[in-house]
Amino acid sequence: MPERNAFFRRLRERIDARDTVVSVGLDADLDRIPEHLRERDLPRWAFNRRIIDATHEYAACYKPNAAFYEDSEGWRSLRETVAYAHGKDVPVLLDAKRGDVGNTARKYADLLEYVDAITANPYLGRDSLEPFLSREGKGVFVLCRTSNPGGADLQDLKLESGEPLYRRVAALAELWNQRGNVGLVVGATAPDELAELREAVPDLPFLVPGVGAQGGDAEAAVEHGLADGVGLVNSSRGIIFAGEDGATHAGSTDRGVDSRKAGDEFATAAGRAAKRLRDRLNRHREE
Amino acid sequence: MPERNAFFRRLRERIDARDTVVSVGLDADLDRIPEHLRERDLPRWAFNRRIIDATHEYAACYKPNAAFYEDSEGWRSLRETVAYAHGKDVPVLLDAKRGDVGNTARKYADLLEYVDAITANPYLGRDSLEPFLSREGKGVFVLCRTSNPGGADLQDLKLESGEPLYRRVAALAELWNQRGNVGLVVGATAPDELAELREAVPDLPFLVPGVGAQGGDAEAAVEHGLADGVGLVNSSRGIIFAGEDGATHAGSTDRGVDSRKAGDEFATAAGRAAKRLRDRLNRHREE
Repeated sequence: MPERNAFFRRLRERIDARDTVVSVGLDADLDRIPEHLRERDLPRWAFNRRIIDATHEYAACYKPNAAFYEDSEGWRSLRETVAYAHGKDVPVLLDAKRGDVGNTARKYADLLEYVDAITANPYLGRDSLEPFLSREGKGVFVLCRTSNPGGADLQDLKLESGEPLYRRVAALAELWNQRGNVGLVVGATAPDELAELREAVPDLPFLVPGVGAQGGDAEAAVEHGLADGVGLVNSSRGIIFAGEDGATHAGSTDRGVDSRKAGDEFATAAGRAAKRLRDRLNRHREE
Repeated sequence: MPERNAFFRRLRERIDARDTVVSVGLDADLDRIPEHLRERDLPRWAFNRRIIDATHEYAACYKPNAAFYEDSEGWRSLRETVAYAHGKDVPVLLDAKRGDVGNTARKYADLLEYVDAITANPYLGRDSLEPFLSREGKGVFVLCRTSNPGGADLQDLKLESGEPLYRRVAALAELWNQRGNVGLVVGATAPDELAELREAVPDLPFLVPGVGAQGGDAEAAVEHGLADGVGLVNSSRGIIFAGEDGATHAGSTDRGVDSRKAGDEFATAAGRAAKRLRDRLNRHREE
């Protein structure tokens, strides 16, 4: 197994320094951003900045999903967000799930100029991922077994050899890991598959989405997601929109813990949700 | 088989009206756009406008690849480009190869608000494509067998049933075609697979990339790519950067056919290349 590259070393440092494997998903959905931020220039950036202020202590990384930034203002918001996260010393993983051929793949790899890692779709095979893989010091998380219902449609198909497709993808990802820069995306809603994949590729760090809003299993995520202590467990809406829950909202006022400006209770709620997830995951990490 | 939806009916009208199945790929690579356009506001839009002026007579559709527009100015350029193509009555297929889960997939489907069709990656299964599939009047081309070398890594894997994965994807796409809005992406560099897939799913229109720069087989693309006359054969760099070839360039001046402004010879060359491809494909269509 090749030595981990600069991205995974940086991630390990962050995990150790802050004692957290929480990935905070920045799915800055314009329709759900608090009213009073929507009138601002770059509302998604205004939102993310407050979320980062409130959560960075608990974040091993930030994971903006590209889908929420695919317009002119969105890309500006994303760049500001990435710079700000870096200012807080938190790496950024762009959840882009890209995969394309030849010169187009090389173009997508330019996304890695300003983020630290990216998620990629393996359906088009090795040469479609090579432009990501060859970016010095960056990380590539290959989609393997996803947590959505349709994940089974292709990923669970049995191959001639008897193994499901996702197992083959894991084996291919290990082959592609010549530079120590490859991880896998494995959903938390399939704990058995998490365990099986960890055994199959003991050295690849996993990004485990689906904890939180999607109701995945935190224990399995931590037990199997980490490879020698390195890995990420993501929650997006469960953290950044935690304030939408009326109870949490009222709670923050009652307890008077919020020294932030009025209207920023959503950020306080996000901070609390991030801390809660970190603590919950750490209980299992220590076992 | 469900009746074709509004997108595929519109495409058929365009194909019939202009007697062409050429898809012009707008991979507006900033590094290859002519020098004198780079100083403009939105160089990619300036480039695309000239390409559209020169090629629209021969175009059944335009296919911008999202990779070349993934920044703040890029999205503005893309929107202008789409509006301009629509002004010339040419449908636009966004080559985005997206695929994601839940609320993220729904967000990606917003891309369909201003284009007519999109390409999508099937690895995450049906629910990841559903937000695209449920957009009224739009088309969805599912990646099936791609023309790049790594295409074989996953797509050719033999399933327990003996069929390769791409065959299963074609069968799934047919299942997903309940609204008459699904096509397949099948590369021209694998003529045997084109023939085999046409037999397997006789009713699904194909988008066949890989003719031109990638050196695919135009005859097979036409023979098998069309379903009841509907389908697309794409060339990107082979058309839009045709002027980079010194010989073509000089030729255009020699023959004095160019009434456009100095510096727009690249567009003249693109128009000529689009016409040439249309004629080449039509020879096979008529057989």
